[in-house]
Amino acid sequence: MIKKYKKTDGISYALGAAVAVELLERRPECARCIYVSPLSEVTAVTERAVKLGVPVKESEKAFNILSPKENCFVIGEFDKFDTSLRKDKHHIVLVNPSNSGNLGTIMRDVAAFDCADLAIITPAADRFDPKTVRASMGAVFGINTQCFASFGEYINEYGKDRETVPFMLGGVPFKSKDFASDKKYALVFGNEATGLPQEFSRFGAVKIEQSDKVDSLNLSVAVSVALYKLYIS
Amino acid sequence: MIKKYKKTDGISYALGAAVAVELLERRPECARCIYVSPLSEVTAVTERAVKLGVPVKESEKAFNILSPKENCFVIGEFDKFDTSLRKDKHHIVLVNPSNSGNLGTIMRDVAAFDCADLAIITPAADRFDPKTVRASMGAVFGINTQCFASFGEYINEYGKDRETVPFMLGGVPFKSKDFASDKKYALVFGNEATGLPQEFSRFGAVKIEQSDKVDSLNLSVAVSVALYKLYIS
Repeated sequence: MIKKYKKTDGISYALGAAVAVELLERRPECARCIYVSPLSEVTAVTERAVKLGVPVKESEKAFNILSPKENCFVIGEFDKFDTSLRKDKHHIVLVNPSNSGNLGTIMRDVAAFDCADLAIITPAADRFDPKTVRASMGAVFGINTQCFASFGEYINEYGKDRETVPFMLGGVPFKSKDFASDKKYALVFGNEATGLPQEFSRFGAVKIEQSDKVDSLNLSVAVSVALYKLYIS
Repeated sequence: MIKKYKKTDGISYALGAAVAVELLERRPECARCIYVSPLSEVTAVTERAVKLGVPVKESEKAFNILSPKENCFVIGEFDKFDTSLRKDKHHIVLVNPSNSGNLGTIMRDVAAFDCADLAIITPAADRFDPKTVRASMGAVFGINTQCFASFGEYINEYGKDRETVPFMLGGVPFKSKDFASDKKYALVFGNEATGLPQEFSRFGAVKIEQSDKVDSLNLSVAVSVALYKLYIS
């Protein structure tokens, strides 16, 4: 039975053909079903689903319930899944990110540079919310993410042999920060509105230089600039 | 009379309190009126409007028409305005950007680094569409933008004494591109789906390095990475 998405559900939805394709390509084992609108002719997705043995169902109701206001003709229903971070990759650590659109965009940035995995410190926006999944343009299916109840829990599991670099307004200019190509880093970003708690400054904070006309950079921009520097180091 | 936004109208709307505040702070002369929802108590905005002599009207209808689906309790109505690019600043040139959300996000990036003005080559997403204005979080009111009917028209007006740097998939790595601190640049980005026409490669194209897992970077990410390098050069 189709019902509105709830965070506590074990399943979620990939809204839109492009996102559903990523589900089928990257996490076919999690794909439960593809809903298509009676109005659509989305052969590429449905062909792929049929090949993978994923059921295709025509349903107007699915779209009314899950995507009433959007121009969306394909929905992929999927089982939520767990991934672990890789110890030999850099990590982007988001502490309490609150906006699902931002979280999805950052997932897309992480996929684009493919040099880091993504840690999420809860409470946080839901990584499997259909809004997050859509904003990620399906990148959520291709990257490694892992949630932690606290930053301490993350450090216990992955902090060894890794340098922690918090991004804070009071930090030293990011330009002056050199990344060694043989080291692994945890780049840590705070909540969109409140930033990181002051206690993070003990790790040696950096700050992305910017005009004083704006309070703080868009979180996704900060992560992108940081990822790019890691990627080319 | 309040009606749905049309591109050909001379007025547009800033949806949401944060965006309306930017309108009042940056372009008070263009602010025509602030609509507040009968449900709201948004004293900071209304106080500011009253100080500026901008009328404040309570209207449920404005919200039903302009923002039926959103959690929005303040709307700023404004006259569209013209700005010119500054010759002593770098320029970000967007050729045929098609997505109003992307365009707004890029405006926000431009405001954050405050080292470049924004040229838009039409046809393009509407810089004053309420969706663009909202995605910009009001940055549209604080930056200089100018539309051109063709890239040639832009070059005629601003190309002199300025180096053109097109961003294209076939370009040389952006890492190897040095920016001189005493030169002005026009960084040129193509449409989200189609990129720049091949003819731009004669200027000497660059490419932001990225994983081959994704087709192309989010346009806003590419612009941010480029702006950051300009900013710290």
